[in-house]
Amino acid sequence: MLPIPFLLLFLSSVLSPSSAADFCVADLSLPTTPAGFSCKKESTVTVSDFVFSGLSVTGNTSNILKAAVTPAFSSQFAGVNGLDISAARLDFAIGGVVPLHTHPAASEVFLVTQGTILAGFISSSNSVYYKTLHKGDLMVFPQGLLHFQVQRGGSPAVAFAAFSSTNPGLQIVSLALFGNSLPSPLVEKVTFLDDEEVKKLKKVLGGTG
Amino acid sequence: MLPIPFLLLFLSSVLSPSSAADFCVADLSLPTTPAGFSCKKESTVTVSDFVFSGLSVTGNTSNILKAAVTPAFSSQFAGVNGLDISAARLDFAIGGVVPLHTHPAASEVFLVTQGTILAGFISSSNSVYYKTLHKGDLMVFPQGLLHFQVQRGGSPAVAFAAFSSTNPGLQIVSLALFGNSLPSPLVEKVTFLDDEEVKKLKKVLGGTG
Amino acid sequence: MLPIPFLLLFLSSVLSPSSAADFCVADLSLPTTPAGFSCKKESTVTVSDFVFSGLSVTGNTSNILKAAVTPAFSSQFAGVNGLDISAARLDFAIGGVVPLHTHPAASEVFLVTQGTILAGFISSSNSVYYKTLHKGDLMVFPQGLLHFQVQRGGSPAVAFAAFSSTNPGLQIVSLALFGNSLPSPLVEKVTFLDDEEVKKLKKVLGGTG
Amino acid sequence: MLPIPFLLLFLSSVLSPSSAADFCVADLSLPTTPAGFSCKKESTVTVSDFVFSGLSVTGNTSNILKAAVTPAFSSQFAGVNGLDISAARLDFAIGGVVPLHTHPAASEVFLVTQGTILAGFISSSNSVYYKTLHKGDLMVFPQGLLHFQVQRGGSPAVAFAAFSSTNPGLQIVSLALFGNSLPSPLVEKVTFLDDEEVKKLKKVLGGTG
Amino acid sequence: MLPIPFLLLFLSSVLSPSSAADFCVADLSLPTTPAGFSCKKESTVTVSDFVFSGLSVTGNTSNILKAAVTPAFSSQFAGVNGLDISAARLDFAIGGVVPLHTHPAASEVFLVTQGTILAGFISSSNSVYYKTLHKGDLMVFPQGLLHFQVQRGGSPAVAFAAFSSTNPGLQIVSLALFGNSLPSPLVEKVTFLDDEEVKKLKKVLGGTG
Amino acid sequence: MLPIPFLLLFLSSVLSPSSAADFCVADLSLPTTPAGFSCKKESTVTVSDFVFSGLSVTGNTSNILKAAVTPAFSSQFAGVNGLDISAARLDFAIGGVVPLHTHPAASEVFLVTQGTILAGFISSSNSVYYKTLHKGDLMVFPQGLLHFQVQRGGSPAVAFAAFSSTNPGLQIVSLALFGNSLPSPLVEKVTFLDDEEVKKLKKVLGGTG
Repeated sequence: MLPIPFLLLFLSSVLSPSSAADFCVADLSLPTTPAGFSCKKESTVTVSDFVFSGLSVTGNTSNILKAAVTPAFSSQFAGVNGLDISAARLDFAIGGVVPLHTHPAASEVFLVTQGTILAGFISSSNSVYYKTLHKGDLMVFPQGLLHFQVQRGGSPAVAFAAFSSTNPGLQIVSLALFGNSLPSPLVEKVTFLDDEEVKKLKKVLGGTG
Repeated sequence: MLPIPFLLLFLSSVLSPSSAADFCVADLSLPTTPAGFSCKKESTVTVSDFVFSGLSVTGNTSNILKAAVTPAFSSQFAGVNGLDISAARLDFAIGGVVPLHTHPAASEVFLVTQGTILAGFISSSNSVYYKTLHKGDLMVFPQGLLHFQVQRGGSPAVAFAAFSSTNPGLQIVSLALFGNSLPSPLVEKVTFLDDEEVKKLKKVLGGTG
Repeated sequence: MLPIPFLLLFLSSVLSPSSAADFCVADLSLPTTPAGFSCKKESTVTVSDFVFSGLSVTGNTSNILKAAVTPAFSSQFAGVNGLDISAARLDFAIGGVVPLHTHPAASEVFLVTQGTILAGFISSSNSVYYKTLHKGDLMVFPQGLLHFQVQRGGSPAVAFAAFSSTNPGLQIVSLALFGNSLPSPLVEKVTFLDDEEVKKLKKVLGGTG
Repeated sequence: MLPIPFLLLFLSSVLSPSSAADFCVADLSLPTTPAGFSCKKESTVTVSDFVFSGLSVTGNTSNILKAAVTPAFSSQFAGVNGLDISAARLDFAIGGVVPLHTHPAASEVFLVTQGTILAGFISSSNSVYYKTLHKGDLMVFPQGLLHFQVQRGGSPAVAFAAFSSTNPGLQIVSLALFGNSLPSPLVEKVTFLDDEEVKKLKKVLGGTG
Repeated sequence: MLPIPFLLLFLSSVLSPSSAADFCVADLSLPTTPAGFSCKKESTVTVSDFVFSGLSVTGNTSNILKAAVTPAFSSQFAGVNGLDISAARLDFAIGGVVPLHTHPAASEVFLVTQGTILAGFISSSNSVYYKTLHKGDLMVFPQGLLHFQVQRGGSPAVAFAAFSSTNPGLQIVSLALFGNSLPSPLVEKVTFLDDEEVKKLKKVLGGTG
Repeated sequence: MLPIPFLLLFLSSVLSPSSAADFCVADLSLPTTPAGFSCKKESTVTVSDFVFSGLSVTGNTSNILKAAVTPAFSSQFAGVNGLDISAARLDFAIGGVVPLHTHPAASEVFLVTQGTILAGFISSSNSVYYKTLHKGDLMVFPQGLLHFQVQRGGSPAVAFAAFSSTNPGLQIVSLALFGNSLPSPLVEKVTFLDDEEVKKLKKVLGGTG
């Protein structure tokens, strides 16, 4: 057999250091593009870029939702940038709820790892699909559709979600309606809700106008 | 020059009749796929498959919304199937509204051709973007985000929308909440709305449970 | 209920300010990428980025085509960048024509809003599809195929087009042949046109060589 | 307000029953396409199509690998068809290993929910990225790259994976080399392994030739 | 070690026979979809589906173009269906030309393997890029743009092309203008060519009207 | 007819100099993105960016493989950046082999232009597809699957490959196993190879650990 250097020569001719293949670990200091964050130089990438420990921590459910979402999107987990996949952890105290929301840019699979959760979604045809999920059950929420998760039973629950985008987005309906500056008359006009209800929820959820 | 048959021979060798290129006019009698409807045979396709006259008719605005949406999606307009584009017409009587909704599968450009319309959307970061649009104004609603359109001023309004999908979907929040069988306690849990309001709107919008 | 700050805390943990989701308003001063322009920082984005008024103005048809195209692509309308959708306005004086052309990167829907227009396209199989369109008619031109629009009847015409790309491109055949420096013998070789015709049209359309 | 029927009329004009939007639950009896399985009719879809309980069961690790993979791809979980997302459960007995493999069509996120696992991948530039993962750690394996998982420590381990495709594929290197009819001389030629080793492993892994 | 059957059991649990992964060999008797032809059952697929010998034969250049194109698109080469890649062979006699054309659905790389060829394309900005290519030169033609190839020098030429689609399409400008039933006055209107020239070329290229 | 300047005015209104359409020639000094390299300014692009002569040179086969791969990926051939197509040349001396490898990000078509080559791939279902290819034969290797090429017969061989990505990546199994720092016990664990074999090949292929 011939000496190794020839082989390495062969390899290095194929695999230029400026290659854009394989992965694109996010560098948040560079410009953002329609396809995600720009890439760190491969020479500075380490295994730590591909491992995220943030989902090992129980989320703080001491809030109005009695629930917490811990995301591992490309903003938090640079290694998934450009790979069309990301994840999140969901913690539910008793009575916890992840209210009606959409992910504008992703489908989701949702796995219950502890406790019992009632989960569901509503289709464009206005059909309702919901079911009580137990430990080990997996549910899929198609892209962009309204869905929700509600803790059930006598013990807290935990679930993990994965998304078909590194940046699925999250739009919670009640926050979109009552948690910003959208004027109350406009909220009422586009939802049919009455004035009293809108103003009450704006107070609770921090909305103005 | 050589006789024509040689050229036609050349052509036909390149362009087999079973070619899947160029377009895929929907045949609704064949199986549907994740990429859209199956295609009609090219030999049966005519120019009528690529022209849709349904948007020339004023929509009937005698309804609760005082507005009408006339779609030209692949279900109605077979020629757009597989081409990542579709359209719709929106008519607004005075007081008309297209309530808060999303298109789960498409971004939208919205062009006012008559009257005045207040239109807006809410982002994943819960920022609100809205503006009064006049004749000729074009607004874009990014994919999957909650948005709305409300007629303004003393005359009816007309707008045309185009979508980045042949089947953008349409999910109206108030119908998703109050126009189906989603149980009232669940609606209340995932929206923070109170029981009275939910039950009142279920009556108006046809919901049960 | 718990105080609002807890909820906002929850929200901000999910929606990092460096998020790339939802939209990517073009910043033309940053590098361009295969997926479009780089994005403006979300904190500098306003509703004006999502509204374009340039299509409200009648195009100047005092030219050789007696027609005008006013684009709302990502170069003109920063808000559509990355969203796979864009639009344009077409004005036709009497006798106006948008000559044979392609959009290399997009399918198109074309809506007549005033007057009468004869429009058509030619397929890869060399089939011809054309029809006289009246106000309200919508036609689709599949991606990359040669197509044209010609004003008909006694009054000017207006149409609006939408495209399945934020940068559909536009390649007019006669300008590609006669409006640049492609040498006449080469033009003749690749089109079968005769020398006299090519040189005559080069004079009209500004070509050299 | 006007009576409900008008609203429903409005709705049904927008949402044709032949709509292809939202989701495409796999019908394995219909033709398969490059984009996945054909879709069940929406009228026959129920919530059960979107929930999969197969991952709640511990895999049988009484095999040569001391490990088991339980997939929830579109073949097993019809609801994910067309949605660019799927999942799997991985069980490891002590000493268990998921040997060197690729998913030709997907990136993967891998979440340890019990025990300790050493996981890693190798890049196109032949860099090695591996790390010991503990409960709650999430690792990403970019599309198509060789990767592996090995149980560590004194207790069994469990992990869940999600993929950026409904049908990620799975190609285990040692099975590709030693578990089929690829002739031994050819295996040796394309791997540099010696004849004795190849024949020994063919016996273990069921290969012929 | 444990017996083999356990391993095979493991394998078969992962790799269901109804899997849609890896490839989708075209079955032209099944419905065509926007993503290409439906797939043959994997059990009937053989290596012959993945090998195409049609490009080994010199094309017949005894025609008006003194050139021949032999395609290996999904209609001819079932194995490339769904894989976003295809190929073609181009033969040029002395004086041969592949006239001005586009591939509506694909970018192309073009490799000269014999002789000398002048090749070029025109951009959306109406810039002209052309160069004389020698044996071994590779040129790229971006998707949808007008391009051409002309034999040069004293010997025949051969080239191979690959495309970023299994069905790139082929639209030859002069055939689109003069080789079908598009009425002459319309051709003249959309090209600025004069009546005499159009009628002359229609005779040569088989057009009517 | 009207004077030319009007037409040019028309053109320049449509084709802004900041357009991102048509192509995106790689500028390796700018940030890399998930969609490839950032683009050179169009004003600095010349025909040389679209022509690559590197494949005209016979690769140096004086190495352990008796084979050479010369890539024309976006790192070497800036013009293909963003166009989902690239190419490579493969030279085989007698006895030459391109060992078992994958392209994580692309499907490949492989054309033999000289000599005889035995080529094959293995599917996710562990089926083996291989065949002896002669001059002019074209074979396709679906994305991400393990494949190989071995010279046959009494004369050297040459082949050209094209890929469905501008940066297909290349992962050679034996180098991934024996040509880096992956610890020997780990290699043995994830492949079932024995210690002696692993250490022998690490010496040959430059591995450590």
